[in-house]
Amino acid sequence: MNRLALTALAAPLLLAAQPPEAAAPAQLHAETPPTPAEVIEAATQQDWRPIAPQNLLVMTLADGGQVFIELAPDFAPVHVENIRRLARAHWFDGIAVVRVQDNYVVQWGDPAEEEADRKPLPEGIVEQPPAEYALVTTAGEEGDIVLWHPRDYLFDAYADWTAYEEGWPTSYDIADETRTLVRSLVHCYGMVGVGRGDNPDTGTGAELYTVIGHAPRHLDRNIALVGRVVEGIEHLSSLPRGTGPLGFYEDPAQRAGIAAVRLASELPEGERPAFEAMRTDTLTFRNYVEARANRGGWFIRPARAVDVCNVNLPIRRAGG
Amino acid sequence: MNRLALTALAAPLLLAAQPPEAAAPAQLHAETPPTPAEVIEAATQQDWRPIAPQNLLVMTLADGGQVFIELAPDFAPVHVENIRRLARAHWFDGIAVVRVQDNYVVQWGDPAEEEADRKPLPEGIVEQPPAEYALVTTAGEEGDIVLWHPRDYLFDAYADWTAYEEGWPTSYDIADETRTLVRSLVHCYGMVGVGRGDNPDTGTGAELYTVIGHAPRHLDRNIALVGRVVEGIEHLSSLPRGTGPLGFYEDPAQRAGIAAVRLASELPEGERPAFEAMRTDTLTFRNYVEARANRGGWFIRPARAVDVCNVNLPIRRAGG
Repeated sequence: MNRLALTALAAPLLLAAQPPEAAAPAQLHAETPPTPAEVIEAATQQDWRPIAPQNLLVMTLADGGQVFIELAPDFAPVHVENIRRLARAHWFDGIAVVRVQDNYVVQWGDPAEEEADRKPLPEGIVEQPPAEYALVTTAGEEGDIVLWHPRDYLFDAYADWTAYEEGWPTSYDIADETRTLVRSLVHCYGMVGVGRGDNPDTGTGAELYTVIGHAPRHLDRNIALVGRVVEGIEHLSSLPRGTGPLGFYEDPAQRAGIAAVRLASELPEGERPAFEAMRTDTLTFRNYVEARANRGGWFIRPARAVDVCNVNLPIRRAGG
Repeated sequence: MNRLALTALAAPLLLAAQPPEAAAPAQLHAETPPTPAEVIEAATQQDWRPIAPQNLLVMTLADGGQVFIELAPDFAPVHVENIRRLARAHWFDGIAVVRVQDNYVVQWGDPAEEEADRKPLPEGIVEQPPAEYALVTTAGEEGDIVLWHPRDYLFDAYADWTAYEEGWPTSYDIADETRTLVRSLVHCYGMVGVGRGDNPDTGTGAELYTVIGHAPRHLDRNIALVGRVVEGIEHLSSLPRGTGPLGFYEDPAQRAGIAAVRLASELPEGERPAFEAMRTDTLTFRNYVEARANRGGWFIRPARAVDVCNVNLPIRRAGG
């Protein structure tokens, strides 16, 4: 089986933007390919983008643990604006983790959500946001790095293909009738979504979840993803599993309380946490994906492939 | 995109054994497909196989939590025999969980494994077992249910194709030169493997791990899988993450102790736990996979696909 260059693979799909650098990287086909850690180590400051404070949620649990979440306004603008509004109103303060289902999700919200004494939502919340989990788009220059496979195809079980787009794991499906593309964020480990009821447009952002198991890709295009945990997911993923149906806690005393959720932009400048994510439109990211797909050292047989949820985008504290 | 029958998809690969029943199931193409729960509910006793006591490990943690592991002797006979021998010698008693890496693995073994005072292995352990993680086989009737995809192909990013074989998630690769098949168990959530050093044949079974995150498929064909957790994984997956490199615990006090590991066959008959796994060579399992791939109800857009690690083989207490 041949290992094809990323660009050659992506060409028929017209999706791979050219990375800023033009020259082919020498180390891609060197005898000893770099490790993912070596690619990160060799990255320069321009390979990183700051996570904007207005896109960074800081969730502080009652026990002091902190979870940092990057929001994705370019993919789910109405949902994200709802969440910002809830955070600015301090609406999340005092809610709790209500559900931990092993190999699936951790979910937090108002424990009285189904009851008459539920917490009223602040003014301005869009109560029936649009279906931002399945965006109609057109083929063009959207995909930064189309994921690849040595078997001459972009294999993915769930979507026509997958890519990293503007820093986010993304799937594309071709709508047969119109040849338009339907774009969706992908339910990888650590992605954050908006819980909803049976009606497709009932997720306001007041109930959120994050994935803590094998990517439940059947949720793609069914429920809005709005971001990802960039640090501190262990405070959620190591919580005791709920013993009720779907992993809901049966005893309210088991719930982990949430002390506060703030947008970093609302914090005094000196107290703002600052993160950087690796840019995905660069040769460095391409090399990183290649390194993830071709591990040496301990590995006897490199996979020569990587699925969209095994890329694990590098994220670091700013100045790291 | 057409939805093809499982057999039609699998035919060119000569891998799908005919299920025992010959007739096409009416409900597969009914207006309202059954849910996975409904397929399980409708299963009869002959759709289940007992997990043999000599293939069932009972691991009791120091805090009383119990983890039950089914061994896969047909895939890794030498490794499994080592593990049985260690269990019969009560060698595992008093070891500990030494590593918990988020979105990756929980690992347990002798904390002094690298030191002079490590626990000596019992007599008869094969210290350099063969590479049972990449079994050469020939195309034939091996695969029970080849996983499927509506896009006319068995898409998997890592292997030429995937299947459930004799109850286990399995991948196949075609070796170009010889046209023989290389078969491997797949690193799905909850699968249990044998830690090894840099040398490919250094895993005795005295150090084990289980997957607690998105399937790290790059480990397939690189390290021996020997079984899967059938109940109690939450006692491992909810442990605090280690803060050292690779998630190793830095402070020995953080380790979760392991009180005892027993083969169920060594326990008095009245005390033996008994589990059943859904058979995978049946029409019921085929319907179950179809139901997992095509969720209705809350789902707006069924995935019409399922990857090998999202099948989640049904397992229950015997008599359930």
